[in-house]
Amino acid sequence: MIIIVKSGTKEERIRDLIRWIEAQGLKTHLSEGEYSTIIGVIGDTSKLDENLVGGLDIVEGVKRVSEPFKSANRKFHPLDSVIEVGEAKAKVGAGHFAMIAGPCSVESEEQIISVAKSVKAAGATMLRGGAFKPRTSPYDFQGLKADGIELLLEAKRETGLPIVTEIMNANHLPLFEEVDVIQVGARNMQNFELLKELGKTNKPILIKRGLANTIKELLMSAEYIMASGNENIILCERGIRTFETATRNTLDLSAVPVLHELSHLPVIVDPSHATGVARYVKPMAMAAAACGADGLIIEVHNDPAHALCDGAQSLRPEQFAELAQAVRTVRAAALEAEGGKQA
Amino acid sequence: MIIIVKSGTKEERIRDLIRWIEAQGLKTHLSEGEYSTIIGVIGDTSKLDENLVGGLDIVEGVKRVSEPFKSANRKFHPLDSVIEVGEAKAKVGAGHFAMIAGPCSVESEEQIISVAKSVKAAGATMLRGGAFKPRTSPYDFQGLKADGIELLLEAKRETGLPIVTEIMNANHLPLFEEVDVIQVGARNMQNFELLKELGKTNKPILIKRGLANTIKELLMSAEYIMASGNENIILCERGIRTFETATRNTLDLSAVPVLHELSHLPVIVDPSHATGVARYVKPMAMAAAACGADGLIIEVHNDPAHALCDGAQSLRPEQFAELAQAVRTVRAAALEAEGGKQA
Amino acid sequence: MIIIVKSGTKEERIRDLIRWIEAQGLKTHLSEGEYSTIIGVIGDTSKLDENLVGGLDIVEGVKRVSEPFKSANRKFHPLDSVIEVGEAKAKVGAGHFAMIAGPCSVESEEQIISVAKSVKAAGATMLRGGAFKPRTSPYDFQGLKADGIELLLEAKRETGLPIVTEIMNANHLPLFEEVDVIQVGARNMQNFELLKELGKTNKPILIKRGLANTIKELLMSAEYIMASGNENIILCERGIRTFETATRNTLDLSAVPVLHELSHLPVIVDPSHATGVARYVKPMAMAAAACGADGLIIEVHNDPAHALCDGAQSLRPEQFAELAQAVRTVRAAALEAEGGKQA
Amino acid sequence: MIIIVKSGTKEERIRDLIRWIEAQGLKTHLSEGEYSTIIGVIGDTSKLDENLVGGLDIVEGVKRVSEPFKSANRKFHPLDSVIEVGEAKAKVGAGHFAMIAGPCSVESEEQIISVAKSVKAAGATMLRGGAFKPRTSPYDFQGLKADGIELLLEAKRETGLPIVTEIMNANHLPLFEEVDVIQVGARNMQNFELLKELGKTNKPILIKRGLANTIKELLMSAEYIMASGNENIILCERGIRTFETATRNTLDLSAVPVLHELSHLPVIVDPSHATGVARYVKPMAMAAAACGADGLIIEVHNDPAHALCDGAQSLRPEQFAELAQAVRTVRAAALEAEGGKQA
Repeated sequence: MIIIVKSGTKEERIRDLIRWIEAQGLKTHLSEGEYSTIIGVIGDTSKLDENLVGGLDIVEGVKRVSEPFKSANRKFHPLDSVIEVGEAKAKVGAGHFAMIAGPCSVESEEQIISVAKSVKAAGATMLRGGAFKPRTSPYDFQGLKADGIELLLEAKRETGLPIVTEIMNANHLPLFEEVDVIQVGARNMQNFELLKELGKTNKPILIKRGLANTIKELLMSAEYIMASGNENIILCERGIRTFETATRNTLDLSAVPVLHELSHLPVIVDPSHATGVARYVKPMAMAAAACGADGLIIEVHNDPAHALCDGAQSLRPEQFAELAQAVRTVRAAALEAEGGKQA
Repeated sequence: MIIIVKSGTKEERIRDLIRWIEAQGLKTHLSEGEYSTIIGVIGDTSKLDENLVGGLDIVEGVKRVSEPFKSANRKFHPLDSVIEVGEAKAKVGAGHFAMIAGPCSVESEEQIISVAKSVKAAGATMLRGGAFKPRTSPYDFQGLKADGIELLLEAKRETGLPIVTEIMNANHLPLFEEVDVIQVGARNMQNFELLKELGKTNKPILIKRGLANTIKELLMSAEYIMASGNENIILCERGIRTFETATRNTLDLSAVPVLHELSHLPVIVDPSHATGVARYVKPMAMAAAACGADGLIIEVHNDPAHALCDGAQSLRPEQFAELAQAVRTVRAAALEAEGGKQA
Repeated sequence: MIIIVKSGTKEERIRDLIRWIEAQGLKTHLSEGEYSTIIGVIGDTSKLDENLVGGLDIVEGVKRVSEPFKSANRKFHPLDSVIEVGEAKAKVGAGHFAMIAGPCSVESEEQIISVAKSVKAAGATMLRGGAFKPRTSPYDFQGLKADGIELLLEAKRETGLPIVTEIMNANHLPLFEEVDVIQVGARNMQNFELLKELGKTNKPILIKRGLANTIKELLMSAEYIMASGNENIILCERGIRTFETATRNTLDLSAVPVLHELSHLPVIVDPSHATGVARYVKPMAMAAAACGADGLIIEVHNDPAHALCDGAQSLRPEQFAELAQAVRTVRAAALEAEGGKQA
Repeated sequence: MIIIVKSGTKEERIRDLIRWIEAQGLKTHLSEGEYSTIIGVIGDTSKLDENLVGGLDIVEGVKRVSEPFKSANRKFHPLDSVIEVGEAKAKVGAGHFAMIAGPCSVESEEQIISVAKSVKAAGATMLRGGAFKPRTSPYDFQGLKADGIELLLEAKRETGLPIVTEIMNANHLPLFEEVDVIQVGARNMQNFELLKELGKTNKPILIKRGLANTIKELLMSAEYIMASGNENIILCERGIRTFETATRNTLDLSAVPVLHELSHLPVIVDPSHATGVARYVKPMAMAAAACGADGLIIEVHNDPAHALCDGAQSLRPEQFAELAQAVRTVRAAALEAEGGKQA
């Protein structure tokens, strides 16, 4: 950490600051220039609160030289991580692509099994479905809860697809025993109490970026889980909140190469929630594959009786099949262009 | 709710849509124009998912005529709510101003009692202090937890000030039995599981707006607590995330008159976390008082040995005393200008 | 336009509003419901100020049924536009891909000709280079101005590549006589006086989205140029301003399918300015090609003596050649996946 | 400027970088630590492009020690500037409060003179009115232009109020000869060609912050005008673009104390455009006065025939009179609280 001291600061106050830093077990290195004085801080500066130091009246600015995340950091773990999912040990990361698909909410046995079969046929590698649903309004449908998980497990038995579903409360963990990947939703990305509990399991965790969270904060949330002992993390970009209203959120695809640079963890993309509009899901899925995403999570609805829902963010199974085929084609081209190869 | 159907849509598909809406117990009213067809939906439309309808391929747009929040809505509750706090029944709202002050974290008995005494002397009506701390990094200090609450209760016994402290996990509720106001932090504003549990208590809840949450979403989160039975809610504006970096967040003071218009609940402002810089706290506190806020929550630090912290977002007790005096002066003027009067 | 009148509004005031609307040559259609009254407005509502009407105290909300842009609107011009550039009539749009490359600033004859030759060899279809430079600071280098344009023209004579360069002042138009594509920078997207003057030329105009401008505002700015008589417009997405700082701006690639849906104009992407980091330019260029962009504009620097600049947002010529090859591969795959074909 | 070099960088490349910096007339100071190497750069670093240096592949980060604005910087000009307006030498800044009021657009002689008289009676110190109007749509009313300025001058002759009106094109400057304050709108904040021309006049310039511009960029735009010779600048906060839609923009009142700290220039606030809703204008005007703004600019409409417009962002004259009175009361209290005094 580099601390730039304001010009004109009394020597005594600088000495106080240095003493305080060293009292925390860190070393310092003073460099006095004509216009400013710089204190280099060496050691485990992750314990030093950047905001606190930056707010001191004698400090002009603070700059971290090293990131405060460790377990998730590519510097200390140069090779891509591969996350293994379920009994089938389906792989994600390092060239293994996850194609996760399924309905927004689990509604009935018929629905979830029908969707599971059709997305499997189209090439999905995992089944998603909401059992516990975070809803902005307390009056909206909150999901089938435990029953929804039962139905997902039924679909898993029928199709062999590992299942992904969202947790909203650590107290529900016993219900997730046979769930293959536990999802942390965008609204809970900084529910640190939940993250710590998930860190005590050994389940793969799919963690979604919060609407107002930076890429580094996403990594810090992954770090919470990893620091508690669980290193099976899949990161997910799903759009951030901006002033633009043509799409529900703004999909920040640049997060894919940025995350790949900073971390060894696999990165998947959710174009369904990011755009909120079915007809934009396929082009954005293709774009995600082209810039190196390690997977996609796509909403697929299967309800011929409610053809009404066509236009929402969910695709029909046949649209998903087209998307999956297009993604495979683009991904193969991108890997060829990168001189890489599919795992 | 008004649904605008795209021009050129086949009559049959419009009829399907109407049938689907009516199947949910709502009435419709069709109005066919030269260029568009409009379906008016009458009844409890809070059950209708706006995004789902808006995403239909035959729908041009959707417009809610009534807000989906009810208990928090001023329309159904025209008079300002007054929230009563603690055994002393300190009031907030409808002309009663809350001046909440205290340290970021509870650190020691000496610290919290010293701060409590000094802020009380300066006019604070409640004491705040963090026992459970949400931190972006798992390696940062996470608070004294249960011990911190004990120390707050000690300070309450010493000074008589009601105490406000943040909860991060509904499982901790038994520890909050003697806490007077339970705070929901910005990161947990949409932790719906926590909100529902708080709705089952009868404690006043201070709920902070999330960094990326709209004013209406804040009201929907209040609605979660109220729908579960607890109507003692204090809303808190504490800055939103924007591109500007001169302050930590961007304090959205317009939220004060907007919230007062939409809701009967009291609205307080946290200029310490919003700006992140001690020297901006006083002017923004004065501005909050001038535009009608029902209270303030201010970080005050009392640590002569760590004079280093001067510049951070916390004020020293003597700075808080100046702020409190300035706020009283401005508030009296604003009330006079509004022809109103202090409760 | 649909105007929703607040419930409880006096009939007389509704009649006043209707009279005022009709006085502007528009027709109205009244629909009274149980809970609200709706006024449908028919005719050329582009003259009606949505903010003014929405701000009336008797109005609950306003919803436009048709977009206020006409010339740029796909509804009235279903086929993709093809823009022809320069004497060579290089095409952009409807399957014709523009690969525009060149240095941030024109610095010298040697530099621009060297870059022009290398990007042409790598497959560029146009040469870009800044002669007039918009700089945040008045103390930064402002470009070679007229001399810079002369050097670009020299490079065009040497290589045959059409040239693209930015205008900052309509008074400079005479200097742009031989320029093939005039660029309007992000900061000038709503410099309406400049747009009107460009509308009087018949030059292709490349207009960049402003940092805080919505997709619809970009189309309205295109409309300014088109309404003045020039329909040769190329739209450019180059990132918007958000809270994320890992990249200079946030590239909003969803804008590509959204713009293609709303408008017939070609859409290109500038990943260099959007990300601000050379190593993210290639993956984002590939993503842009995958989601259907009609072209790219890429910064390429050619300065072996200043190898220093490697890391900035500019690519070296050999890196651009790799990017161009990768984009061709991905684009062919995306077209194949879409069942489409390259023009 | 502090440049932090990545650990592991070859000495030779560091020497290249130092040589390049020194070739630009700057001095360097090298400090090698265990984990990183720091280059301090001394001299006029405003010429050094921070983005360019920060983008180098060997650079971990860059931190400016001094701001790149000079003329606008309080460091070099500690006392508040006072701007004198018009023949009457009306003062703004250093305790002199500007109350600027008038209609959005000048519509007719009767209208502007009527509004001018009423706002003067209510305490306005200047008259505003749009003659050239920046409109998002080319089909919207663009203002009365030269005739509008004539009418403003007529109102000035009648009332003695100095006039403020917006310029959109430097070619129109001859029309602004008798205008007292020239306004640069938010959309033109970074129209650097216009700023330079305004720098050659000696008129007071009121420059509004752009919707996506940081506080520092606003100061850099002021710097453009000052660097060209005109130091009569009034800064104006008018809301920034965020995800919140309850108000048209988000008024960033913290910008007032931040700008006062960074610069000696007066800072006024425009709550009419920031909120876009008449009923929020008064509370936000009071808040602006409370946090130390040097003035306000308020839209006032006077059109009994169009009582329709009540609800828009414009106030009626009697509402403005109430606002002006409330602002005086709050301002007096704020000054008293600050121990300051009105000029």
